[in-house]
Amino acid sequence: MNTADTGFSLDPRLAADTVVLTDLPLCRLCLMNDCRFPWLILVPRRHGVTDIDRLIPADREALWCEVDQAMAALRAVAPLDKLNVGALGNIVRQLHVNVVARRETDAAWPGPVWGAGKAEPYAPQALTDIRARLRNALSPR
Amino acid sequence: MNTADTGFSLDPRLAADTVVLTDLPLCRLCLMNDCRFPWLILVPRRHGVTDIDRLIPADREALWCEVDQAMAALRAVAPLDKLNVGALGNIVRQLHVNVVARRETDAAWPGPVWGAGKAEPYAPQALTDIRARLRNALSPR
Repeated sequence: MNTADTGFSLDPRLAADTVVLTDLPLCRLCLMNDCRFPWLILVPRRHGVTDIDRLIPADREALWCEVDQAMAALRAVAPLDKLNVGALGNIVRQLHVNVVARRETDAAWPGPVWGAGKAEPYAPQALTDIRARLRNALSPR
Repeated sequence: MNTADTGFSLDPRLAADTVVLTDLPLCRLCLMNDCRFPWLILVPRRHGVTDIDRLIPADREALWCEVDQAMAALRAVAPLDKLNVGALGNIVRQLHVNVVARRETDAAWPGPVWGAGKAEPYAPQALTDIRARLRNALSPR
């Protein structure tokens, strides 16, 4: 933990719905525990920030860089037809960016994933597998 | 038009639903013609690109910079409780980024704006006004 993390804790609803993969320089990177969609959530470790434009410029730059990393990791581990990127936060106000691998055959296609039915948690082995593959895809080469 | 624009034209569905505000260095900046939500759409003038991670790094950097500009312009002209930023493109595949000013009292709150009811076009004078105010907010100081 460095000074930038002071006061940060993951919103309890995000904590309940996700598993933590790793801390990137700015964001806590989480995997949504919903096997219907390979779905990453980036949460800047900045206390009290709810909107992207409230991050200082250096953090904003880091955020976009980490969104790029998340997209690359999903591309590496999941077949996908489309990437969806969204920062909404109308319900969970803690700033977070969703990066979701979409298939034309998935449960919500072509609608957004938000509010689409009920999450289906990964089976234990499948969760172990996708976490390992994502962590591997995120490792520096 | 410079060489980067070669082959670019706005998707017909985006063209039908929006009015063009201006061309930023990378993106055509459009206003969704829906007075329920102050809603900007950034469309990189790059032919055939559907996903953010398919832009070259310099274009990706420009895109995030222009998303920042769009957020600032909305903040300047519209009272808002939350900014929503999303690049979905499941239906209109041409890469585009939505930046939307949300109010807790708006027609879709707290849901996403995509697929929420039917657009309500601006009255002519209201459209003239918001275009002028957005253009002014986008002007370099």
